[in-house]
Amino acid sequence: MAVYTEVSNGELETFVSLYDIGQPISCKGIAEGVENSNFLLSTDRSRYILTLYEKRVARADLPFFLGLMDHLAAKGIVCPTPIHQRSGSALGELCGRPAALISFLDGMWPRRPTPRQCQLLGDAMARMHLAGADYKGHRPNTLSVAGWRRLYESTAIRAHEVAHGLADEIKGELEAFESRWPEGLAAGVIHADLFPDNVFFLGDRLSGIIDFYFACNDFYAYDLAVCLNAWCFEPDNSFNATKARLMITAYDKVRPIPPAEMAALPMLARGSALRFLLTRLYDWLNHPAGAFVKPKDPLEYLNKLRFHRGVRSAAAYGVG
Amino acid sequence: MAVYTEVSNGELETFVSLYDIGQPISCKGIAEGVENSNFLLSTDRSRYILTLYEKRVARADLPFFLGLMDHLAAKGIVCPTPIHQRSGSALGELCGRPAALISFLDGMWPRRPTPRQCQLLGDAMARMHLAGADYKGHRPNTLSVAGWRRLYESTAIRAHEVAHGLADEIKGELEAFESRWPEGLAAGVIHADLFPDNVFFLGDRLSGIIDFYFACNDFYAYDLAVCLNAWCFEPDNSFNATKARLMITAYDKVRPIPPAEMAALPMLARGSALRFLLTRLYDWLNHPAGAFVKPKDPLEYLNKLRFHRGVRSAAAYGVG
Repeated sequence: MAVYTEVSNGELETFVSLYDIGQPISCKGIAEGVENSNFLLSTDRSRYILTLYEKRVARADLPFFLGLMDHLAAKGIVCPTPIHQRSGSALGELCGRPAALISFLDGMWPRRPTPRQCQLLGDAMARMHLAGADYKGHRPNTLSVAGWRRLYESTAIRAHEVAHGLADEIKGELEAFESRWPEGLAAGVIHADLFPDNVFFLGDRLSGIIDFYFACNDFYAYDLAVCLNAWCFEPDNSFNATKARLMITAYDKVRPIPPAEMAALPMLARGSALRFLLTRLYDWLNHPAGAFVKPKDPLEYLNKLRFHRGVRSAAAYGVG
Repeated sequence: MAVYTEVSNGELETFVSLYDIGQPISCKGIAEGVENSNFLLSTDRSRYILTLYEKRVARADLPFFLGLMDHLAAKGIVCPTPIHQRSGSALGELCGRPAALISFLDGMWPRRPTPRQCQLLGDAMARMHLAGADYKGHRPNTLSVAGWRRLYESTAIRAHEVAHGLADEIKGELEAFESRWPEGLAAGVIHADLFPDNVFFLGDRLSGIIDFYFACNDFYAYDLAVCLNAWCFEPDNSFNATKARLMITAYDKVRPIPPAEMAALPMLARGSALRFLLTRLYDWLNHPAGAFVKPKDPLEYLNKLRFHRGVRSAAAYGVG
């Protein structure tokens, strides 16, 4: 949750006047998303999400993200679409920050995903991958193996504050990934952060995918690996193989998963667990006292990492 | 800003089914209000604010607050109105907390109030006082002089962490108020927390007053005193007598201010400054590390208190 930037009414009106969206009648900071300031803006015509990009999102990457949303929406993927200014630009500036207006999507994200929702997610993820295949933009995954090494180096000295021996365990994992990370798998644009709070449902329908601000080019199967971690563990840290099987088989029906991708899933899931362990560890060690954002528990992802380290094949996920 | 309680979709659906408001299609935590958890709930029919009352609001007081909103709205004051369940009750329960659904009001609160907005506020406040005069509910102001003494006692030992000599200065103020607090002024239901973030505007119109959770029975002029502090100081702590004059004269046109009330304004404004100094001081000293809420600066109100201590009559506010 986060609203970092206060927007005055005068600044808001000036910003809104650049768009053909009517007059603002309500603007409320919303307590979702931790990277940016988000507001639910209502005008006399419609509702929008107003996002101010805070420092963690690189300005140079914004055209990639906004262009991707435009591209996917044009192909029928339900995701927010950037509203363009009269000048044609999808990217504006507000309170000294890059800012964008995007369409508002109805739906609610599942606090406790059901097996059926995992299945719907698998289907939608595969469709998103296919729809993004011809997107012209390109953005490397800065949070893959090389990025993990940098996060390790900036957290190692204090990692013991979170768990005894944590730095050593992470170092061992890094070495395993640096020598054995999969190569040559099918790659394209992935979401890379497809957690439940980024997927909306309305009744028994997946009504939208949001928050493309980690999207990048990487193995398609890495997106699936992120979701195995984010959707298929129960609150007690146990792995729900039924949810995993439903997600993977629904994905496979839309975009058939080659054997090499299936075989790589345990390593990718273990790597994805390390990625979120490291970013959460960094945030845990570096959040200012009294900050708005309550950091997430890094150790949840240490447990997930250890689970996947013990997995020999995708059979543990109910498939393959 | 605050969302303290996470509501699962199942719990939300059960709660909403008690009302005749349609199906929920979106529910977002909003980053406004520091006492309760607030959500903007959209259904296929309309928009609502869903409030979960956290521990700081006494459950026994909720019927007073909700009944007051019903009463004021029925008299034409633009304020949120509680939606009643099919059973008739305006107060429900969600996630183990008292909860209410109230109507959504369009409008935006002014980050930097203009003189015109201060004038509109004075007018609306007086109308609200008149409309509340025959409200049957009664709730003493627990944050008046006796309450300040309790807050002083629980903060005095650590007040020096915020400013050198602060406990002594507060003690001196308390003694002044305990012997010289006004008596016999006209009293009735007041809002008692009419800060800019509780007053919405649309263009040049005051479109609503929200957040009645400090409402109580006290001197009408005390509400005006709270607003002198909350609306008429500039960010550099200077007092804007033009704004004060416009607010007070607009109020006086609707509900004429008797000479005794006008004469008491400096003392009431000084007391109101102490009230917010003390609650902010308490929050400053007691907020948990890493809490969601960034505490407000107590010293802003020490400056305001000192200003009013130097005032001899309401002439300093541009009137009287």
